[in-house]
Amino acid sequence: MTTDLPEESYRDRLKVRLLQVAESVLATEGLAALQARRIAQESSCSVGTLYNIFGDIDGLILQANERTLQALGGILTAAGQRTADSSLEIRLMALATAYLDFATVNQLRWRAVFEHRLADDREVPQTYVNDRRRLLALIEHQLDTTLTAPQARSDAAHALFSAVHGIVLLSIDAKLGPFVPAMCERQIKFVIENVARGLTPRDAISKQ
Amino acid sequence: MTTDLPEESYRDRLKVRLLQVAESVLATEGLAALQARRIAQESSCSVGTLYNIFGDIDGLILQANERTLQALGGILTAAGQRTADSSLEIRLMALATAYLDFATVNQLRWRAVFEHRLADDREVPQTYVNDRRRLLALIEHQLDTTLTAPQARSDAAHALFSAVHGIVLLSIDAKLGPFVPAMCERQIKFVIENVARGLTPRDAISKQ
Repeated sequence: MTTDLPEESYRDRLKVRLLQVAESVLATEGLAALQARRIAQESSCSVGTLYNIFGDIDGLILQANERTLQALGGILTAAGQRTADSSLEIRLMALATAYLDFATVNQLRWRAVFEHRLADDREVPQTYVNDRRRLLALIEHQLDTTLTAPQARSDAAHALFSAVHGIVLLSIDAKLGPFVPAMCERQIKFVIENVARGLTPRDAISKQ
Repeated sequence: MTTDLPEESYRDRLKVRLLQVAESVLATEGLAALQARRIAQESSCSVGTLYNIFGDIDGLILQANERTLQALGGILTAAGQRTADSSLEIRLMALATAYLDFATVNQLRWRAVFEHRLADDREVPQTYVNDRRRLLALIEHQLDTTLTAPQARSDAAHALFSAVHGIVLLSIDAKLGPFVPAMCERQIKFVIENVARGLTPRDAISKQ
């Protein structure tokens, strides 16, 4: 029906507005504050309309978190491009410190990505899976020539992402002591420097 | 006053009971279920008495979490002793897989340690700091001969703990894909194997 057009366009605009409000609440107050009634009210629509667009509050949270993943992806891509001609250690450190800076600056949005849990019977939407895959692909790409077996490279990218995430998380949460950004960076460097050295073939070293 | 004795003894017994109830609630329902009223009720005392003993609900949570740290410390100590004569990689892997198993089996108690956040103006009690230090000392001990500078060894222990924690956390939370314990172990192995190799002096390798 041609009359659907203006209706859809209103719906699209409303969706954008709801996501903007949700992102702003996430950024300033965190995941716990992301309640359907509040987001609907601040977007001047009903809770029913919000649910109609996103399915439920989890649907809205997932899309807001996807935008955080995309913003993070943009930062990591820039760091990767900036260091494209450097050694493995320097490239991985650039990604890792960009991650630390992103988490520090966007702390509540970043936390929301990891704090949000879907019901066990609920599948993560494909668009979210794709955004996540793009992030991991950025790390895998650094290992293209170092680890040629796809499974090993995928494991390594998962491991490096999670290891750096763990260091950043426990540092920012002050779980092992007060948060000292320089100390956090030293810890990241310890892992990346030694992993990069461990991954470098021995004959490459002896030839240096 | 000598008459304090029976009173104190009752208080001690009540404290033990409150902690047992708290641990059981943590283990079966998680941190969010640890409410003062409920713990007091199930321990047959008043909320006032609970606060009198622990200061507030955070005081109770911290002591319950301390017991989790102690249980974890026991497991890691056993893994460390079992592999005391092995290579650095094998010793670190033993600690890391013991950590993965502990987190898998005691998931809610383990989560509570990392989910609980104190108010910013509140200091972590010294007993908690000591238990945390003992855990990190177990890892530092593995690096005694590899990293002789105390600061470097401390950084490395923090980094390894956090890196393995990150891998275990994102795996169990299915944050990068479904939780596959064997895949989680491969990721841990990637980091530990390469870090151990990276830490091994090159001349030690060439002599092999």
